[in-house]
Amino acid sequence: MGVVVSLGDARDPLSGLKPIMELVASDMEAVNRIILDKAVSDVEMIPTLAHHLISSGGKRLRPMLTIAAAKLAGYGGQGHIRLASAVEFMHTATLLHDDVVDDSDYRRGKKTARILWGNQASVLVGDFLLGQAFRMMVDVGSLPALKILSNAAAVIAEGEVMQLAAAKNMATTEDEYLQIINAKTAALFSAAAEVGPAVAGRPAEEQAALKSYGRNLGIAFQLVDDALDYAGDSSRLGKSVGDDFREGKITLPVILAFRRGSESERAFWRSSLVDGNSSDEALAEAFNLMKRHKAIEATLERARTYGAMARDALAIFPDSTAKTALIEVVGFCVARAH
Amino acid sequence: MGVVVSLGDARDPLSGLKPIMELVASDMEAVNRIILDKAVSDVEMIPTLAHHLISSGGKRLRPMLTIAAAKLAGYGGQGHIRLASAVEFMHTATLLHDDVVDDSDYRRGKKTARILWGNQASVLVGDFLLGQAFRMMVDVGSLPALKILSNAAAVIAEGEVMQLAAAKNMATTEDEYLQIINAKTAALFSAAAEVGPAVAGRPAEEQAALKSYGRNLGIAFQLVDDALDYAGDSSRLGKSVGDDFREGKITLPVILAFRRGSESERAFWRSSLVDGNSSDEALAEAFNLMKRHKAIEATLERARTYGAMARDALAIFPDSTAKTALIEVVGFCVARAH
Repeated sequence: MGVVVSLGDARDPLSGLKPIMELVASDMEAVNRIILDKAVSDVEMIPTLAHHLISSGGKRLRPMLTIAAAKLAGYGGQGHIRLASAVEFMHTATLLHDDVVDDSDYRRGKKTARILWGNQASVLVGDFLLGQAFRMMVDVGSLPALKILSNAAAVIAEGEVMQLAAAKNMATTEDEYLQIINAKTAALFSAAAEVGPAVAGRPAEEQAALKSYGRNLGIAFQLVDDALDYAGDSSRLGKSVGDDFREGKITLPVILAFRRGSESERAFWRSSLVDGNSSDEALAEAFNLMKRHKAIEATLERARTYGAMARDALAIFPDSTAKTALIEVVGFCVARAH
Repeated sequence: MGVVVSLGDARDPLSGLKPIMELVASDMEAVNRIILDKAVSDVEMIPTLAHHLISSGGKRLRPMLTIAAAKLAGYGGQGHIRLASAVEFMHTATLLHDDVVDDSDYRRGKKTARILWGNQASVLVGDFLLGQAFRMMVDVGSLPALKILSNAAAVIAEGEVMQLAAAKNMATTEDEYLQIINAKTAALFSAAAEVGPAVAGRPAEEQAALKSYGRNLGIAFQLVDDALDYAGDSSRLGKSVGDDFREGKITLPVILAFRRGSESERAFWRSSLVDGNSSDEALAEAFNLMKRHKAIEATLERARTYGAMARDALAIFPDSTAKTALIEVVGFCVARAH
């Protein structure tokens, strides 16, 4: 089920991830060792719960960005390994808290930690992982990297509160929505990429380029994610199409269908998302309206634009395997909409 | 209501706080300005919720320790102000998450943030304040101070998970209980004191002394807190006597009364704390048993011992106003049991 959209590109979307995966393979082994190592605690619930998330098949996209950006910057040290691990822990902590805030039952096709071990443990283990993330970055000892990542931590939380405040508010504009995903998603992508040149002590210009790359990539990633919730293939996503609809989330496809729709269609969206009338019939009608107003296509079109900005941000760097790998990631983020 | 315990000392318990309050008065004004400043956000819910906690009449004991310890160490810079503010934000973030985890309705006599704005906002604003705390400490730029505080953040969360795992477990030993309060309470007191000499670049010996002072003070503080829950004066505490009992918390007074009691008394404790039979009659019986086995006196006796260790930890420092102020804080922490 879902809106069928053809993008005229039939490549395997995962192919865009191959160059970066090859580039970072040996460093990511080290990252994965540190991640397992730092999730250890004498308090049994911590490794149990952390491993559930760590082993749940995420792609580790964010730490891969850190490693690749450090390579692009010609970094010769080892600090990028710990920074990449810290980035993944920050992400994991956010997922734990998000699932509590959203009352989510499933993530990547598995029961969420809060369903298995409760909201209390999810909140506290999230706090622990965030603490471990800070410990790791402090260990690296790069103040510029610390500044970037601690800033991201506050901005991400701010974005989550913003999203909570905008929940079920049909008056949310595209601008406000962009501001939210900028904070809750793009800030970590941006920081993950920016710490690469930062730990390498590269000039401000290169740091700004990777910061911009990460930010635009993160926005594209989130836009595609939001489109997939109405157009995706559940079996491949590990989440159910329609989850955002049932939770009453105001994402860009909804904002566009709502604004492009008639007064009676707007009444439908209010009834579904604000008042919670989200039956299967209502979801089918949502698909219809999105199709009628080309809301998914328009969302993906926006994603492609942000993807182009991410690519262009890297133009100042000479050609290299790392540059190619980072550019191909953009293709992956946009192409997974198939 | 509560167990009446006479300690033969009728001084105003707050008098022990006077010397440190005088010592740190002007610096704490700066801390209070930063705290208000850093709780600001365009996302309205953040300052609203943060101010509720910030203005709720906490004594700001932890940031006062940081300021006083920096003065004891002869620090001449301004970094201690931001570090003290970061310590208070870490504490505030912990309170927000604690109230969610404990389902608490009241704190310091006021409705908790989670009652007023919901669990979701409490989790996320806690995350935001923690992010702001890290931003502030990174701004100071002292790697030794960053190491101490990031370490504390992870240990505090670990202690909270430990406490969650030990909840309603009557087999908890005094040792295990000490390990929990060491992590969940004493780690922040300890870090708050240790960053003073750390930011001043003082020798390891002085850092270790203030670390030990803070740790023992924190344990004494928590022991007295746990005793007050069975022996305190609700009107002065801002929390109801018996809260821990009703929540089934296993604190030292309970551990002692349980272990010193008969088999039928142990059955009573299990029925009250594990099975949740915590009526007013049960609470009255709990008071009886604590009195019979001198559980409150023994808890306070332990607190006095840790207080003595805190004082002795400062013995290596020559006499000064700052040293006297820190020593008097120990008196306050123990004397508030009146």
